[in-house]
Amino acid sequence: MRSLFEIDEWKVIERSFDPLKQKQAESIFSIGNGSFGQRANFEEKYSGDSLLGSYVGGVYYPDKTRVGWWKNGYPEYFAKVLNSCNWIGINMEVNGLQIDLSSAEVLSFYRELDMKLGTLKRNVVMRLEDGKEMEIDALRFCSMDDEDIAAISYAVTPLNFSGIVRFTPYLNGRVSNHDSNYNEFFWEEHSREITPHFGLVCAKTKKTEFVVATAMRYTFSEDNKQLEIIPHLNDCELYVESSFDYELMQGKKYFLHKYVSIAASIKYPENEVKRMAISCLENGFNLGFDGLLHRHVKAWESIWQKADIVISGDSAAQQGIRFNIFHLYQTYTGKNAKLNIGPKGFTGEKYGGATYWDTEAYCLPFYLKTADYRIARQLLIYRFNHLQKAIENAEKLGFKNGAALYPMVTMNGEECHNEWEITFEEIHRNGAIAFGIYNYIRHTNDKDYLKEYGFPVLLGIARFWAQRFNWSGSKNAFVMLGVTGPNEYENNVNNNWYTNYIARWCIDYCLKIQEELGNESNPKMSEKEVSTFRHIIENIYFPQLTGTSIFLQQEGFMDKEQLSASDIPRNERPINQYWSWDRILRSVFIKQADVLQGLYLFEEFFDVQTIKENFDFYEPKTVHESSLSPCIHVILAAKIGNLEKAYELYLRTSRLDLDDYNHEAEEGLHITSMAGTWMSLVEGFGGVRITEKGLQINPSIPMTWASYSFQLLYLNLPIHITVSKNSCIVKNKSQKFITFKLHEIIYELESSQEIKISY
Amino acid sequence: MRSLFEIDEWKVIERSFDPLKQKQAESIFSIGNGSFGQRANFEEKYSGDSLLGSYVGGVYYPDKTRVGWWKNGYPEYFAKVLNSCNWIGINMEVNGLQIDLSSAEVLSFYRELDMKLGTLKRNVVMRLEDGKEMEIDALRFCSMDDEDIAAISYAVTPLNFSGIVRFTPYLNGRVSNHDSNYNEFFWEEHSREITPHFGLVCAKTKKTEFVVATAMRYTFSEDNKQLEIIPHLNDCELYVESSFDYELMQGKKYFLHKYVSIAASIKYPENEVKRMAISCLENGFNLGFDGLLHRHVKAWESIWQKADIVISGDSAAQQGIRFNIFHLYQTYTGKNAKLNIGPKGFTGEKYGGATYWDTEAYCLPFYLKTADYRIARQLLIYRFNHLQKAIENAEKLGFKNGAALYPMVTMNGEECHNEWEITFEEIHRNGAIAFGIYNYIRHTNDKDYLKEYGFPVLLGIARFWAQRFNWSGSKNAFVMLGVTGPNEYENNVNNNWYTNYIARWCIDYCLKIQEELGNESNPKMSEKEVSTFRHIIENIYFPQLTGTSIFLQQEGFMDKEQLSASDIPRNERPINQYWSWDRILRSVFIKQADVLQGLYLFEEFFDVQTIKENFDFYEPKTVHESSLSPCIHVILAAKIGNLEKAYELYLRTSRLDLDDYNHEAEEGLHITSMAGTWMSLVEGFGGVRITEKGLQINPSIPMTWASYSFQLLYLNLPIHITVSKNSCIVKNKSQKFITFKLHEIIYELESSQEIKISY
Repeated sequence: MRSLFEIDEWKVIERSFDPLKQKQAESIFSIGNGSFGQRANFEEKYSGDSLLGSYVGGVYYPDKTRVGWWKNGYPEYFAKVLNSCNWIGINMEVNGLQIDLSSAEVLSFYRELDMKLGTLKRNVVMRLEDGKEMEIDALRFCSMDDEDIAAISYAVTPLNFSGIVRFTPYLNGRVSNHDSNYNEFFWEEHSREITPHFGLVCAKTKKTEFVVATAMRYTFSEDNKQLEIIPHLNDCELYVESSFDYELMQGKKYFLHKYVSIAASIKYPENEVKRMAISCLENGFNLGFDGLLHRHVKAWESIWQKADIVISGDSAAQQGIRFNIFHLYQTYTGKNAKLNIGPKGFTGEKYGGATYWDTEAYCLPFYLKTADYRIARQLLIYRFNHLQKAIENAEKLGFKNGAALYPMVTMNGEECHNEWEITFEEIHRNGAIAFGIYNYIRHTNDKDYLKEYGFPVLLGIARFWAQRFNWSGSKNAFVMLGVTGPNEYENNVNNNWYTNYIARWCIDYCLKIQEELGNESNPKMSEKEVSTFRHIIENIYFPQLTGTSIFLQQEGFMDKEQLSASDIPRNERPINQYWSWDRILRSVFIKQADVLQGLYLFEEFFDVQTIKENFDFYEPKTVHESSLSPCIHVILAAKIGNLEKAYELYLRTSRLDLDDYNHEAEEGLHITSMAGTWMSLVEGFGGVRITEKGLQINPSIPMTWASYSFQLLYLNLPIHITVSKNSCIVKNKSQKFITFKLHEIIYELESSQEIKISY
Repeated sequence: MRSLFEIDEWKVIERSFDPLKQKQAESIFSIGNGSFGQRANFEEKYSGDSLLGSYVGGVYYPDKTRVGWWKNGYPEYFAKVLNSCNWIGINMEVNGLQIDLSSAEVLSFYRELDMKLGTLKRNVVMRLEDGKEMEIDALRFCSMDDEDIAAISYAVTPLNFSGIVRFTPYLNGRVSNHDSNYNEFFWEEHSREITPHFGLVCAKTKKTEFVVATAMRYTFSEDNKQLEIIPHLNDCELYVESSFDYELMQGKKYFLHKYVSIAASIKYPENEVKRMAISCLENGFNLGFDGLLHRHVKAWESIWQKADIVISGDSAAQQGIRFNIFHLYQTYTGKNAKLNIGPKGFTGEKYGGATYWDTEAYCLPFYLKTADYRIARQLLIYRFNHLQKAIENAEKLGFKNGAALYPMVTMNGEECHNEWEITFEEIHRNGAIAFGIYNYIRHTNDKDYLKEYGFPVLLGIARFWAQRFNWSGSKNAFVMLGVTGPNEYENNVNNNWYTNYIARWCIDYCLKIQEELGNESNPKMSEKEVSTFRHIIENIYFPQLTGTSIFLQQEGFMDKEQLSASDIPRNERPINQYWSWDRILRSVFIKQADVLQGLYLFEEFFDVQTIKENFDFYEPKTVHESSLSPCIHVILAAKIGNLEKAYELYLRTSRLDLDDYNHEAEEGLHITSMAGTWMSLVEGFGGVRITEKGLQINPSIPMTWASYSFQLLYLNLPIHITVSKNSCIVKNKSQKFITFKLHEIIYELESSQEIKISY
């Protein structure tokens, strides 16, 4: 596949302007800082096709549910990520002519996302309708150092003329969501201010009453010399602008520096929001653009120190993996327990709500191994904080006694999704949350968390599972009816192997922790409850193909016509674009193979032969039409020694958005599956496992790579690993002694020691 | 249950005005003539809560689909029955005060639906705000004799005053649908006319471009003497009125006779519609109110002659059954092959589209036994006319080679419904259509129909089934995966017994007819196709409970917790109002028992013991939350001798709307299930069967009834049956010799002969 953007190990580069690619580029070049984010819309007016997007983490609107046929239990609304105040805007007029790349002639165009520095840069040379030529140099960033701050350096050079240019920096809160159900307008004005030195739009969401204050200041200078201007102020509801005219001299470069602060009631008390926006802005302004940039770059430096992966011999792979890591950290930094990781992050508004099972199943392992354990802990506390809502959600469906069902999609703990086969049946999400707790504990051994936050969640989930199983007289076993597994190309099936397995595991793990906590466990379980739990987990039905080790995706799976994905004509792929839903459902084809997902999560309980047998059975039936699918196959393929398949699928996942495999990058990036790519490298090729037995490494390397290296945190200790063709260097960068297993041999490393192991 | 309206054997009577009951009464007192219909809205302005409804058969609007999550294969729109021009309107003003029952004091109120005559009558005495007292006597009907005509006699008597009253008869086409997805306005004006003697609103639906012309004339008289009036004309888009003032004398009765014609392009060429409305109106006007009424009453008389059921000893049951028969004939008379029978008929707009499987499964048997065979034939031709669309519908889902899938809901042959588990999976509807053909043939022996219209439909349906089964290697049999049976409380199940059974029967019947037609069959089937069909029907899997004769509703049914409906707390019934959809789906409870539906349709292939065993298994699990459910249980209960259960369920079905069991009569009546009530009496208590072996009667009678009698058509020969406690009188009202079996004994009857059989 031809890459859409230039390949560079640290940058994404675009060297020409293609209006048809603009929305896609707006997604790819998005910047953010975990607190807010912004698509790569232009600062100046742009009348071409564009998806304007400025998002503030956790600020949503309860968009009234749109559904064809109501079912009891559906939620009243879908929490939508909100398009917020446009803070990048700087309009420019020459002789009454509005600068607009859609109408000007673009003589040269360069756009660059520098992932090392976390900056978005743009250089354009254009010829206006009247022949005037101008150059724009824009650079902007959302500060990773101060999460309420952003800054823009917007430089303009008149190339073949001197003359008056009007600049209009503005804040515009009159924005709407492209993806709203009933075309409602979601914002109302809280207050606004405009003075010669300052502008502010404070907006409030309807219904949810989130307050977001966006404030700006700016300077205008030439040659580092601040120029005197006389601004003309203008404002209307949710909008403020400060406009000034200046006579620019041919060949000279003029800088407009715009400083912006964004403060929201998701972080500050409502009555402090405006004040915080103002004081943040003052701090930022006083540091100046270069000062802010310096701190921002430092912050990224420290992230890259922990999280970078270096690949030699494959620049496309190098760019791909960094792109994924970069966007993950732009989306979530763990600073606010009210935030989570939306499927599109701050790069688009599709899918609304922030939190899916993707968080625990895909993102948590990434943060666990690349960042301070407190970041992963925040993600888990988020679910603890929603426990009561999850209990209410289960009650709504008819469960009782503290059973908790976490929502499929949520912003505030309440369910948003409204397809019965998903909302009510794709309940494996509950298992992923429990597994996340287990995974966190084996990475960190954080027993305080477990007692205070983890166990109550585990118990709520285990109670749900215990009630969701029912006794089948005809099978003489507990069965789970009417579920949808991670493979969403099957709906409402009975005894989905993955769901039954993770449910049994959850109940078992809950009992184990309850025993470990002993008298300290809270809530308490009665003896009767304990024995009911035991009775259930000892008598669960699992469908299996007789005479083999193949676990059946669900009961009746073998009644389907057994075909391979290779039997599907190429022009009918992806099937979700060419086949009716009816045909997809009845086919054997798998969106994402949930038996393999289960074998990945619980591999310690299965031998390699069983994994191989199941992989060879399910991989050929899997069409990977979920972005979350290929990474699991990479990891298992690497484990069973099928390196060719592993690399084939790795390519598919690592440049999914950069190369826009699914023709949908324009609506935003696949943020959560980016963590899957990281997993497929570290756990797949790297063969890294952190289990209760300790750290294991079973490295392998794709043919085309010379070497690759990454750092991981194990019990919060940094360990650096470099894998080459026939050797592996492990460096203990921590202050403590560590042990690990590599290819089944135990090694020990003193602090700062490194070892090269050849094989 | 207390009856809401007074019980009378031929009438529905309401003796007081309750604004809270008005919408419900508007449904119950609806009148129609198979071509159009009208809810019992008041002629004069009414500002209270009301559902204005005037419907013209077959005139619909393609309302854009509203759905939460799109699935490939969903239709673009839902065909909505349209609220059309309000033709009943006659406003009245006294001293500038608008007459409105919502603000006047109602001194007495009487409303009567005379089912024998087909008229809606109303008498009101009211006191206006200024103390004036008036009486209104209104009588109206939609002519059963001329299906384009309606007439109103609106009489006014000033009781305690003399003075000028303003009358404003009008036509108002500015009406909207309560139940539209996006609040669109569906009509535009085609033309309008208003002269002192005439008014017309000709309207056109957007998109579908149906033209409907509504025209009016009126006279004003006292003591049969026409009075001279000077009308003041007024009109605006889609609206015309003719207003006049007249000084009324205290105690005298003044008559406004309003004549209306409604002509639509569903029946006439578009450019003829207006002309037809005008000429129909002239004809009607020339006949005068009494002349029109006389012809109308005659037409009803001839319907009742064939279709009436007389019950002695139970007035409530008598009223109930006549109410059902009355509304069925108001809804469908078989005159236009483009029309069909909507679930709400002309009594409300809910459910949109006209045609469900209800038509073939419930309504067809009613018309087959009570009306000339050409009426049932029209219903079947309707489906023949939609065959090409059904083939396209199947192609959209991935089927080929002429396989036909008839829609779940339709107006013009295209699918309207948009829930995947229904649209794509509730495919048993296809079977009901084939069974309708079979049923028609055994009632009429109409071989011409079979050759020209029946066989192509049968073959399309059989081809669909043959492709919808797939071979299961693991079962060594053909299976049908992912279906929803008539029991909609189970979705996406495998091997639903009913669907597998009716599908096998369809293929088998298609082969039988193909053989019968021999060289005349068209389309032709290849030998290969014939042998494929045979191979499939010989190898179909049917789930059955081992060691019993119980057919399992679907695979895995016994994995559910086996409970009885009596285990559900009373305050949780109906479960569809109190339980989450999740809980309903996973429960054992049945909305409508499809195994029993199959045993009803195919009873000749099962012994009574098997039917009893299945009835005793499924009846207790059935919550009858479909209006189509109880009637089938009545018939089977009567067959297996459980008369008590049969009567209990008969009560439930026969007065469903009159007593408003489900608190939903206000949105319209359950027209199609009314035919089920008729079946439950004739086939249930009457024990009537018309099969290929001839006519059988196995009468029984509920305890509380003295006797009941009904007429049926067998091979178009009228036979009258009266059932008393221990005897049955059969009268051959035809010109031919007939034979029949009663309690297994064969009887013969000459023309006009009757026989009393005691037992």
